[in-house]
Amino acid sequence: MNPTTCADILARVRSARPLVHHITNCVTINDCANITIAAGAAPVMAAAPEEAGEMVGAAGALVLNIGTLSRDQVESMLIAGVRANELGIPVVLDPVGAGATRLRTESVARLLDRIEIAVLKGNAGEIGTIAGTGGRVRGVDSGGVTGDPVETARECARTTGAVIAMSGATDIVTDGRRVVLVENGTPLMGQLSGTGCMAASVTGAFVAVESDRTIAAAAALAAFGRAGERAAAKASGPYSFRTGLIDELFTLTEDDLAGHTRVRTIDGL
Amino acid sequence: MNPTTCADILARVRSARPLVHHITNCVTINDCANITIAAGAAPVMAAAPEEAGEMVGAAGALVLNIGTLSRDQVESMLIAGVRANELGIPVVLDPVGAGATRLRTESVARLLDRIEIAVLKGNAGEIGTIAGTGGRVRGVDSGGVTGDPVETARECARTTGAVIAMSGATDIVTDGRRVVLVENGTPLMGQLSGTGCMAASVTGAFVAVESDRTIAAAAALAAFGRAGERAAAKASGPYSFRTGLIDELFTLTEDDLAGHTRVRTIDGL
Amino acid sequence: MNPTTCADILARVRSARPLVHHITNCVTINDCANITIAAGAAPVMAAAPEEAGEMVGAAGALVLNIGTLSRDQVESMLIAGVRANELGIPVVLDPVGAGATRLRTESVARLLDRIEIAVLKGNAGEIGTIAGTGGRVRGVDSGGVTGDPVETARECARTTGAVIAMSGATDIVTDGRRVVLVENGTPLMGQLSGTGCMAASVTGAFVAVESDRTIAAAAALAAFGRAGERAAAKASGPYSFRTGLIDELFTLTEDDLAGHTRVRTIDGL
Repeated sequence: MNPTTCADILARVRSARPLVHHITNCVTINDCANITIAAGAAPVMAAAPEEAGEMVGAAGALVLNIGTLSRDQVESMLIAGVRANELGIPVVLDPVGAGATRLRTESVARLLDRIEIAVLKGNAGEIGTIAGTGGRVRGVDSGGVTGDPVETARECARTTGAVIAMSGATDIVTDGRRVVLVENGTPLMGQLSGTGCMAASVTGAFVAVESDRTIAAAAALAAFGRAGERAAAKASGPYSFRTGLIDELFTLTEDDLAGHTRVRTIDGL
Repeated sequence: MNPTTCADILARVRSARPLVHHITNCVTINDCANITIAAGAAPVMAAAPEEAGEMVGAAGALVLNIGTLSRDQVESMLIAGVRANELGIPVVLDPVGAGATRLRTESVARLLDRIEIAVLKGNAGEIGTIAGTGGRVRGVDSGGVTGDPVETARECARTTGAVIAMSGATDIVTDGRRVVLVENGTPLMGQLSGTGCMAASVTGAFVAVESDRTIAAAAALAAFGRAGERAAAKASGPYSFRTGLIDELFTLTEDDLAGHTRVRTIDGL
Repeated sequence: MNPTTCADILARVRSARPLVHHITNCVTINDCANITIAAGAAPVMAAAPEEAGEMVGAAGALVLNIGTLSRDQVESMLIAGVRANELGIPVVLDPVGAGATRLRTESVARLLDRIEIAVLKGNAGEIGTIAGTGGRVRGVDSGGVTGDPVETARECARTTGAVIAMSGATDIVTDGRRVVLVENGTPLMGQLSGTGCMAASVTGAFVAVESDRTIAAAAALAAFGRAGERAAAKASGPYSFRTGLIDELFTLTEDDLAGHTRVRTIDGL
């Protein structure tokens, strides 16, 4: 994976300005809307069952996030996800807190069973839980996996058929065979609520314009991580970091991204 | 419309500190609460059907926004709106995404049919859709109108009986006959989620203290736009702009507003 | 109450990093999540009735906030609160707007009747309403109490069995007998939506690690207030103040807190 690939995809997002439809949690929904704009795309949030399927018809991607799920909201996710599949619109799923409660674990299983997920973006504990190889989750925080993280991600990709984007100090992106490690980012990401959700929104924007989902997801995490690095250099704490994160992604030049993308591939990509 | 009029109304908001009751979307609800405070008013958000009508009794204005509507939420809007009409409390409606889905278009029609709306604040695509003269909406973004924007706004005012506040590079405010053009603002407004929603909140604060709704809405958009101009001068991107927008409206002096209001009238006002 | 007590408890929060489970309003939920992190704890928001009781099992404290309540949400609060009581997990209740509508006043009565509340944190009008001694509430703002605030808080503690944390220019914390006055803070707290909600979140983090709830609540308000003082010194308005509030609590040293805690005790503590 060439470092200029990330910059190329970012340029395509900004040019196409895809609509990214979200059905997401109420904690970080505002930051998700704004990071989508900062990435160069257009957000819309529409969860009512009467319109979720209709709205997705205008979208370039659908992002589902179970951070504050309810039974009704999962039904809307199913309607929108099935419709997205019919239309060939890629679906990103963020399984927030899978493993923490039965409702979350079972809801993710239902979504994976009924919808073809393009990219499943979660933390290590969530991905380990879904892979069935062991993952620890407390609330919405990862407690890590049993065994090797790369193999966990690969197993999860094989089990679910989705590209896995596992966030961490090094992000791991894999389709089960190919693996890309993304080292852009900053520890401040872990001190701000919603960075995982925002990463999924950026991933939605990138998969809307790039059909190789492994490449798209890795590029999204690199761009988001690079914006975070620039923001962290000026931050005094989590909220000045957040301000910088949005501003820096919005103003990130393709040259800066091409020059600072830190991706490594395993098994060639 | 005299430039000092805007400053006079802002002074009255700060003196009276009206309660502005919102039933609104969950994406931008926090920014709406805070812009209401920054304008000098007091926000409250209460959407449960059991209390929506009771809460409006204490309010100086009611703001309805369908950004993340549900069937139940529209019912609460009807309860609160009908009660507001009984009490003579002005109602501002922000028809977010009207034209994008049937649910949104039909819900706006229901609200307009059952509630006397004081000010209908929307983007060009939404207003054109409601006027029935042609409007394009993608997600919650305007794709513009068919034909002349001023005539579209006037037609919408005549059809609905509401004062129309159509946002854009130049905001158009009209009761169907009189027209005020507001040129305060900045392109950064279009890069931050929720600026339209916030404009509706400020409009709520202004109509709570000024009975000429055309004047009140134009003054609200001028004050909000002026705060935006001041914020844009210092911003590095959308989130530093947001921080500045709240801070600048909070600290905006009446002298600054009187000196920088950019309103033009058509057909005399 | 020794000034180093506050710093000691803050240090224990940062060391233990307790999970603070929230069922809260959708206006300030993001700021509540982030202030919890800034205090050194871990937030989770989970309101679905199917998981509210299960999630609380992993938590060190439960924070309930009725700012945008619904009938269904109150049911989830009852499930989570009863389960928390069974497990010995302290429950903080923020009765937002009690006194403003029947739904709010009655819902608080139901929660107090069915759940043992560790700390009841409200503004003067809410506490006066719950004490039954007279409180004025407009929307979600306090209009003050009838009679002496300290006696109102004491009466509310005796009536409810909870430690009362009554916010104001001087915060009053009491178990009905002992009284601690906390003078840390800044008037800017009153110009930002959600400072009361955030104070409840910090209180949740502190009661998770300190069993004397009067001490824990007073220490939480002192730490939160001290962060506010530091933020106010640099703020240009409500949103730069908010950015500073999160950043300053996150970076607040125990030495700074020990040196600037302003607590006074009545009847010895």
